Amino acid sequence: MVHKAAGETANSNDLQATILGLIGNDLREMEVVFHRELRSNHPYVADVLTHLNTYRGKRLRPMLLLLTAQAVGEVDAAHHVLAAVVEMIHTATLVHDDVLDDATTRRHVATVNSRWNNETSVLLGDYLFTHAFHLASSLESTLACRLIGRATNLVCEGELAQIHERGNSGLTEEQYFNIIEGKTAELCAVSCYLGAHFAGGSEATVLAMDRYGRNLGIAFQIADDLLDVCGTEQETGKTLGSDLEKQKLTLPLIRLLAEATPAAAGKIRELLAHPSAESKAELNRLLKAGDALEYARQRAFEYVEAARAALACLADSPARQVLELLTEFVVVRST
Amino acid sequence: MVHKAAGETANSNDLQATILGLIGNDLREMEVVFHRELRSNHPYVADVLTHLNTYRGKRLRPMLLLLTAQAVGEVDAAHHVLAAVVEMIHTATLVHDDVLDDATTRRHVATVNSRWNNETSVLLGDYLFTHAFHLASSLESTLACRLIGRATNLVCEGELAQIHERGNSGLTEEQYFNIIEGKTAELCAVSCYLGAHFAGGSEATVLAMDRYGRNLGIAFQIADDLLDVCGTEQETGKTLGSDLEKQKLTLPLIRLLAEATPAAAGKIRELLAHPSAESKAELNRLLKAGDALEYARQRAFEYVEAARAALACLADSPARQVLELLTEFVVVRST
Repeated sequence: MVHKAAGETANSNDLQATILGLIGNDLREMEVVFHRELRSNHPYVADVLTHLNTYRGKRLRPMLLLLTAQAVGEVDAAHHVLAAVVEMIHTATLVHDDVLDDATTRRHVATVNSRWNNETSVLLGDYLFTHAFHLASSLESTLACRLIGRATNLVCEGELAQIHERGNSGLTEEQYFNIIEGKTAELCAVSCYLGAHFAGGSEATVLAMDRYGRNLGIAFQIADDLLDVCGTEQETGKTLGSDLEKQKLTLPLIRLLAEATPAAAGKIRELLAHPSAESKAELNRLLKAGDALEYARQRAFEYVEAARAALACLADSPARQVLELLTEFVVVRST
Repeated sequence: MVHKAAGETANSNDLQATILGLIGNDLREMEVVFHRELRSNHPYVADVLTHLNTYRGKRLRPMLLLLTAQAVGEVDAAHHVLAAVVEMIHTATLVHDDVLDDATTRRHVATVNSRWNNETSVLLGDYLFTHAFHLASSLESTLACRLIGRATNLVCEGELAQIHERGNSGLTEEQYFNIIEGKTAELCAVSCYLGAHFAGGSEATVLAMDRYGRNLGIAFQIADDLLDVCGTEQETGKTLGSDLEKQKLTLPLIRLLAEATPAAAGKIRELLAHPSAESKAELNRLLKAGDALEYARQRAFEYVEAARAALACLADSPARQVLELLTEFVVVRST
């Protein structure tokens, strides 16, 4: 089933076909659970929920959960529920992020805030959060609720920290990594943890899978931040440059500032403080002229390596090979 | 301990003293749990959380939960946790409501959105939701998570329906009652349900307590809507008139429109469609001239009666007497 050995460059279509071969049925089960939980008799609510489907994403977190489960043991009905829960939490944060970022497009379609209004987005996000916990509580034990609760606490704290640091051109790498560990990596980590735990993994295996998801999540976020400063909207299907617009410092800019002469750093801070099409273009030029983009890519690769290393405790299997290929894929998309 | 028999007009200070006499220790335990769950090492998050304390409310939902528990059986540690959970959910909805309403003041202090910004409010609300579920999952069974999940699903759906009906001057009484049952009464109902269930109440008793909370919640919301159209900001400590501003039709206006001649109704719709200080003053005059305010009060009293009737299955006790007095209090505050 797996056409490429780890180490070769993953082709996105091949990888997707391989994943569908391994967990296609489980992903379909997950979709059934997802949509069953989000049914509404209220026509307006039903309308907004239908719109959500049009910006259905990659389902990365459900994939991580299901692949981890398969690599560790066997996928069962609890995994389908949990996969739907983590996707619902992720969707809730996306809907709220789009309000915070004033984003108009996601995955090539209008965001909820631009098609309806901010109020609808705020309430829809809440609705998704509460349904996610409601769904998690349909399992036998409180463990999933507790772990997902803890992870989402950290997601929100990471996002709050990010809001606070907006406009802080002195943000350090350490602060940046703390923020992205909360806002992105926690949910990937808990997805892998739950996948492994509910497949009967030993404590050591479960913790290794948590580590895999966490490192992968960090690499993924660095790649996402790279795309925001140097991708195209056509490629990504979403509003870009919003980090600069909102004066959110990400790794490439932190590096650019760290490597600049005091005079150049002063100029960069000036550009950051006055976001405009011109200042964005100039920052883009500076990023491309120095080592900032390459440095950020390099850091992402380090996290990819750490994610791979965490897989060492697993016996070889098609699912494990895909988890390995996935690490490559999350970073490749930004280069 | 209870100084006034049901039927006499409740004095708010006496009632509060009586409540503190009965469940003061439990309310303090609830506060300990509440603040333990909401501790943050991040200075910004800690700051925003501290500000929340300054608009600490009446703690109506924890009171309902604890009084119901005491009236049915015995209050224990699970009740303290659950009381903190329902208050956290309620606080989350208030923080998000203030964003939706662009409110600047709540309980005489600046709202989070006006002191910081909308982004912080959205994320703080999320943070409170996820912590509430995290806290609920610290109990032994998933029952509380499930019931609270279901109730908050309905709260969000009620609020989404309300957004959708904004500007609809044809809103019927039935639609209005559906909306407020979701957005307000569900959480009161589940508070009473949980209080009774975790005190070992029989199924019939637990359902009667749900009914008590639901009817009380509806009466409470009608009273709140009355205050918004005819209270003063000094009395209530919050931004008023926002329902008119946001073109949210509430019971007094629905009645005013229903009783008006076609010509007068046309004039009222005109005023509603163009919110301003003048149109608000004119609507206020019309509300006071007709039976609209009295009608809304009357409907609130009907729900108060239904709430009282639901208490019939309980043996007499100081807690039961307070539950009875509370029904009066929620409506009296609007007259």
